Amino acid sequence: MRVLVIGGDGYCGWATALHLSNRGYEVGILDNLIRRHWDAQLGADTLTPIAPIQQRLQRWKDLTGKHIDLYIGDITDYAFLSKSLRQFEPDTIVHFGEQRSAPFSMIDREHAVMTQVNNVVGTLNILYAMKEDFPDAHLVKLGTMGEYGTPNIDIEEGYITIEHNGRKDTLPYPKQPGSMYHLSKVHDSHNIHFACRIWGLRATDLNQGVVYGVLTDETGMDEMLINRLDYDGVFGTALNRFCIQAAISHPLTVYGKGGQTRGFLDIRDTVRCMELAIANPANSGEFRVFNQFTELFSINDLALKVKQAGISLGIDVEINNLENPRIELEEHYFNAKNTKLLDLGLEPHYLSDSLLDSLLNFSIKYKDRVDMNHILPKVTWKR
Amino acid sequence: MRVLVIGGDGYCGWATALHLSNRGYEVGILDNLIRRHWDAQLGADTLTPIAPIQQRLQRWKDLTGKHIDLYIGDITDYAFLSKSLRQFEPDTIVHFGEQRSAPFSMIDREHAVMTQVNNVVGTLNILYAMKEDFPDAHLVKLGTMGEYGTPNIDIEEGYITIEHNGRKDTLPYPKQPGSMYHLSKVHDSHNIHFACRIWGLRATDLNQGVVYGVLTDETGMDEMLINRLDYDGVFGTALNRFCIQAAISHPLTVYGKGGQTRGFLDIRDTVRCMELAIANPANSGEFRVFNQFTELFSINDLALKVKQAGISLGIDVEINNLENPRIELEEHYFNAKNTKLLDLGLEPHYLSDSLLDSLLNFSIKYKDRVDMNHILPKVTWKR
Repeated sequence: MRVLVIGGDGYCGWATALHLSNRGYEVGILDNLIRRHWDAQLGADTLTPIAPIQQRLQRWKDLTGKHIDLYIGDITDYAFLSKSLRQFEPDTIVHFGEQRSAPFSMIDREHAVMTQVNNVVGTLNILYAMKEDFPDAHLVKLGTMGEYGTPNIDIEEGYITIEHNGRKDTLPYPKQPGSMYHLSKVHDSHNIHFACRIWGLRATDLNQGVVYGVLTDETGMDEMLINRLDYDGVFGTALNRFCIQAAISHPLTVYGKGGQTRGFLDIRDTVRCMELAIANPANSGEFRVFNQFTELFSINDLALKVKQAGISLGIDVEINNLENPRIELEEHYFNAKNTKLLDLGLEPHYLSDSLLDSLLNFSIKYKDRVDMNHILPKVTWKR
Repeated sequence: MRVLVIGGDGYCGWATALHLSNRGYEVGILDNLIRRHWDAQLGADTLTPIAPIQQRLQRWKDLTGKHIDLYIGDITDYAFLSKSLRQFEPDTIVHFGEQRSAPFSMIDREHAVMTQVNNVVGTLNILYAMKEDFPDAHLVKLGTMGEYGTPNIDIEEGYITIEHNGRKDTLPYPKQPGSMYHLSKVHDSHNIHFACRIWGLRATDLNQGVVYGVLTDETGMDEMLINRLDYDGVFGTALNRFCIQAAISHPLTVYGKGGQTRGFLDIRDTVRCMELAIANPANSGEFRVFNQFTELFSINDLALKVKQAGISLGIDVEINNLENPRIELEEHYFNAKNTKLLDLGLEPHYLSDSLLDSLLNFSIKYKDRVDMNHILPKVTWKR
């Protein structure tokens, strides 16, 4: 089985590519490396020093004997995308290749427009390339739990059965995304759904929660294979950021009241979920949606867990409630379903077990690399 | 009250601009005139010969003494948009300025990408320009009934109250659009909803049905003010197309079984709906959705009505069921609500009254201009 991982140089993409390669899949990585460029523009950097993609892949081959093809270029360039696909001939296309930061998309109009155009056009190009040359391939696309927003009813996996005025239908779950980035994922979902309905393509949309952790079996094999770990106000996600703040004795930056509840998962479960989705493809014409998270936590829950973990390592962790730079409900109902991946065989890593080994210890090991200028949020939703 | 009509050189936009000007609004038109260029590229033309926008506006002034400002440029060019808005200082922004043909968007990948980028970026630019300089202005945006698709439950106006597992919430109505164009409108709706929630903008989304007719009080005043009437397979909508086919004794082109049911309205009601939405603005922070149509018909209903109207004019009208170039349900449940504009005072023109005077007679008058090459559909959804 040949799997092309678009965005394979990124946080989830790199871990996924190595995991699949390790499991015997023939893997290719397609990436424009733009994330490294955006880091440079923001003056931010991953806590863990990541090697150039070419060196990463060489080390992987030296260690395991497994070769990963590399295609460097941009999927918004259709000619490049089409040529690369024809060369690699994928059975599965894993698509992580999008601008994935909510704050980045909210910096200003230019970043909002760039995020939506980049993500929507990239995904449209993949859909057209599949229709043209690989109509039977399986698209495994990274969505986000943030597409749903925080409705006052249970969140189902992609669809909801509605009874209304004596009639019934199962329809796409209503979406109330909370940033220009999250909106781009909603646009993608509608576009992919349409392509499946009209052209008979097969796709799985993985509405992923917030991923934490830096260690997988593969990225832990060698320093040169280490995964990125972002802690800055733009690309750093809540739990990773908190652990790094704890490591440098900076108060944890809880936005607002901290009652915001979200789905979370360990990056070891991300790579396993990708494997499960690939091994159990959607049917032709099916737009399948899985909610990809293992546990629900409020931001306050997370901060307290990091504080406790800190104590066990002898670190005193303070918690600060900052003015929320985002506009979002800070106290709300949140109950999302996540049974479909469990049904396929996912055995979750739980946060309590993973926090120390996969995250806090890494944060401490590399804490001298922290740039204090990037700890606090700079992007606000209001202006 | 100052109203800027973006897309004011088009079918709905031109009629709306003149109507508002006639009613005493201070009107500006902003348009990049691209629709005339697309016609040229397709080798298609409106049945009714339309004058250049500059001559149209000069004649309007000569006839009524009313001046309409003209801004020629593209709203995807933010600098131009922002400058024009600052110059005109609108209280209301009416936004018709999008690529509005489903078949056009389905020609190929390039047209799909262009349609989505053009429509999404244009609307995003308007939202950012409003946030920046006109946070209290009212955006009146043309949506489409096609955003809903054909669900098996009643279609509400923008939102639906869902009871689920013992809890209840009112959420955006689920969307299942049927073309790359209709998808772009769904993307817009999500983006505008977000801007209202986050920045407190006020917006009304008019989910319009299929518009028919060529005559309004204003466009009928003078030959130089005549509105466009499209009959080609790309820009011609069902009823307009049927009337022109009847006028030239071409069989009516019903796609597939003809059981496709949609909402329809007379262009005289379009302009009145715009006026009602403008005179009764949305609240700050509100994303208001009206379903803008007056009657539901199946395509077979329409074909039969045109056939009957033809008989009364002594024309023998044949009906042909073509292979459907689109992919859509040809027999389905369809019951959409449309009470909100009626509550504001809309008094509908019904099709039975309008068919002859506003449409079939125009078709006959200009039938020598019909280009037979454009009668049949050339764009298919499958390839």
